[in-house]
Amino acid sequence: MLQSKLFYKTNKNKSANADSVSHDLLIRAGYIDQLMAGVYTFLPLGFKVFKNVEHIIRDHMEQIGGQELLMPVLHPKENWVKTGRIEKEKEILFVVKGNGEKEYVLGPTHEEIVSPLARKIIFSYKDLPLYVFQIQEKFRDELRPKSGLLRTREFAMKDFYSFHANQADLDSYYATVAKAYKNIFSECGIGKITYRTLASGGSFSKYSDEFQMLTEAGEDTVFICKKCKLAINKEIKAENPSCPECKNSDFEEKKSIEVGNIFKMGTRYSLPFELKFTDKDGHDKPVIMGCYGIGLGRLMGAVVEASHDEKGIIWPKTIAPFSVHLLQLDGKPKIQAAAKKIYAQLQKENIEVLYDDRQNKAAGEKFADADLLGIPYRIVVSEKTFAKNSVEFKERGKAAIKLVKINQLSKLF
Amino acid sequence: MLQSKLFYKTNKNKSANADSVSHDLLIRAGYIDQLMAGVYTFLPLGFKVFKNVEHIIRDHMEQIGGQELLMPVLHPKENWVKTGRIEKEKEILFVVKGNGEKEYVLGPTHEEIVSPLARKIIFSYKDLPLYVFQIQEKFRDELRPKSGLLRTREFAMKDFYSFHANQADLDSYYATVAKAYKNIFSECGIGKITYRTLASGGSFSKYSDEFQMLTEAGEDTVFICKKCKLAINKEIKAENPSCPECKNSDFEEKKSIEVGNIFKMGTRYSLPFELKFTDKDGHDKPVIMGCYGIGLGRLMGAVVEASHDEKGIIWPKTIAPFSVHLLQLDGKPKIQAAAKKIYAQLQKENIEVLYDDRQNKAAGEKFADADLLGIPYRIVVSEKTFAKNSVEFKERGKAAIKLVKINQLSKLF
Repeated sequence: MLQSKLFYKTNKNKSANADSVSHDLLIRAGYIDQLMAGVYTFLPLGFKVFKNVEHIIRDHMEQIGGQELLMPVLHPKENWVKTGRIEKEKEILFVVKGNGEKEYVLGPTHEEIVSPLARKIIFSYKDLPLYVFQIQEKFRDELRPKSGLLRTREFAMKDFYSFHANQADLDSYYATVAKAYKNIFSECGIGKITYRTLASGGSFSKYSDEFQMLTEAGEDTVFICKKCKLAINKEIKAENPSCPECKNSDFEEKKSIEVGNIFKMGTRYSLPFELKFTDKDGHDKPVIMGCYGIGLGRLMGAVVEASHDEKGIIWPKTIAPFSVHLLQLDGKPKIQAAAKKIYAQLQKENIEVLYDDRQNKAAGEKFADADLLGIPYRIVVSEKTFAKNSVEFKERGKAAIKLVKINQLSKLF
Repeated sequence: MLQSKLFYKTNKNKSANADSVSHDLLIRAGYIDQLMAGVYTFLPLGFKVFKNVEHIIRDHMEQIGGQELLMPVLHPKENWVKTGRIEKEKEILFVVKGNGEKEYVLGPTHEEIVSPLARKIIFSYKDLPLYVFQIQEKFRDELRPKSGLLRTREFAMKDFYSFHANQADLDSYYATVAKAYKNIFSECGIGKITYRTLASGGSFSKYSDEFQMLTEAGEDTVFICKKCKLAINKEIKAENPSCPECKNSDFEEKKSIEVGNIFKMGTRYSLPFELKFTDKDGHDKPVIMGCYGIGLGRLMGAVVEASHDEKGIIWPKTIAPFSVHLLQLDGKPKIQAAAKKIYAQLQKENIEVLYDDRQNKAAGEKFADADLLGIPYRIVVSEKTFAKNSVEFKERGKAAIKLVKINQLSKLF
């Protein structure tokens, strides 16, 4: 991609209304644009990161047998009345009236849709287990949206639903999903700082699990047992002065961001929608369900919270919008020709390159933009490097700069 | 994919409330599920077709320089007030009230968002032209949703916006997009029956163009000039008793489905949002815009209208959910083992296979399901074929069945 043609604009100055580092950096670097409170556009740079995160999540969900589908945003209000959530969740539900006085809920999650849908497909124990997921826009009318992509009114979420014949099968699959989540967060570069954290299970399960990424800037808190290393969230801590696992009462307290959650719903949604199956013994039983969520934008924001310095973002290679940021520091025809040749060569090798071909920018501005954007590898072509048939090669987040012969470049990737 | 595990259910009987062939077949074959009037879930089979269509469209939009981004569903109502469309389009707009009496429009199209966004990025003639697109959910409160995916209240659309310094540049790019559209429809298998059709340009351009797919079952009409073959839509026909191109007045009348449209918007949206640029001569001028839409679900529905027989769907290979439907007609261990081996072998060769491994289904039912689902190649393994180390090989939509040696199978793809 030629940077001169990229649909974006960077900003040197801190965003006036940004209330977190990721909010500030993602806006300043031209990854996202704020349309209004809690509602954002993913600009081409941000959309590339979004797609990379989406691919990683999809891949892991398919590996554990998930079948992807796409459910609607518009839900019939009746379904939310049936589960009682029209009242319970009313503060965050968007309800819209259509032609003929029909009322719709804009889905903040899809239990009210997937359960009656599954009822059309699941009849016998032979139909179980089944796993479906979608990556889709959700809506929550947050009173106070904040921190950029961390708490928004509209957000893409991967929501996964599992259907089981019995509790043991759910328990075993729940562990499988937890492992897949670990792998997703590792692949997005935050595996080491993301803790599976015991959380309240609501009225239908003793516990659920949150995945909390440790960070100074988080809006949440995790308590880690100093003895057995179990992580618990603040609700569990409030109910249990000592560790639920080892009874030790010495905890390390850490400000965190929730990047995923998994939940055993049991029969909470299968009962109201009469989602049942005929078991081997010929009896009708309610289907046992689990649900598993990851917010894609939130995960992007969390990665930036975890991986940046004072100059800008440091993207993990797995989700960076481009692999290489190629900077041409000089407008002279021979330098431009050299840069174009390197650009073509890298593209031919299927390396994703953002080529800063802008003519009217000073070297300092180009370096500052490269640091702000946070693409993993920076390659600089200038009069000086060209004289040695070389380029400057630098990894974002590392200080070392090395000269590399142009004809040796491919070997670095 | 094992058919015994697929999240779907077929139905032998015509859907009671289906009002078009594609509506009936897509529901009966388990591609989509109707949640309520005009609102559908794409089941895993349907989602695979959806993704294939999406990839084709994305590919062609990137080839003509389009940069993909993702704009929100929630629009500030003020933006729609500014363009006057809050009144003009009020019959189809969903308007939702949020916390703090904030009002949002659920976007049916994104001129009201992309124009002020572009204003943050476009300043000089050097920033032009620019092309952006998204593939995103849209909302229209249709009074009478109908024909399954052909007219819905919620639908995924590819909307592409181009920004130009002058009319000549827009005109030339408009032709480029028209060509890309032709290629998209050809790749989706409806190129030969899809006509670029002259349509009204509204108050800002003399003409726009619709892409109309000819079909008996369409809700629209195209008039094709018998002399110069120009296609015009019904508005243009009403205004022009003779052909606008050659003045001949003899037309062929044909019932069609609109599968895409392209539109020169000129300064219709750049003026209210003050989207301007500084030209070479130092003067501020309004940016000239074009917009280009394709509905993904509608295109899927149109393909089914164009490509089916009395037994079911006949998917073009390019967008079929799987390439091969492998039917195992006998539960005997040796036949099962042979089918599994073929399944593994084809998967290894990256051929997408739906393997009908169901044990309790009669051959007749499996054949009927295969015809209904419409996957391009059917491979049958039975006692009879296995005795000859062979499978039966048949193309959907063709009558010929041939015996193929199992070890020669790969050569067919």
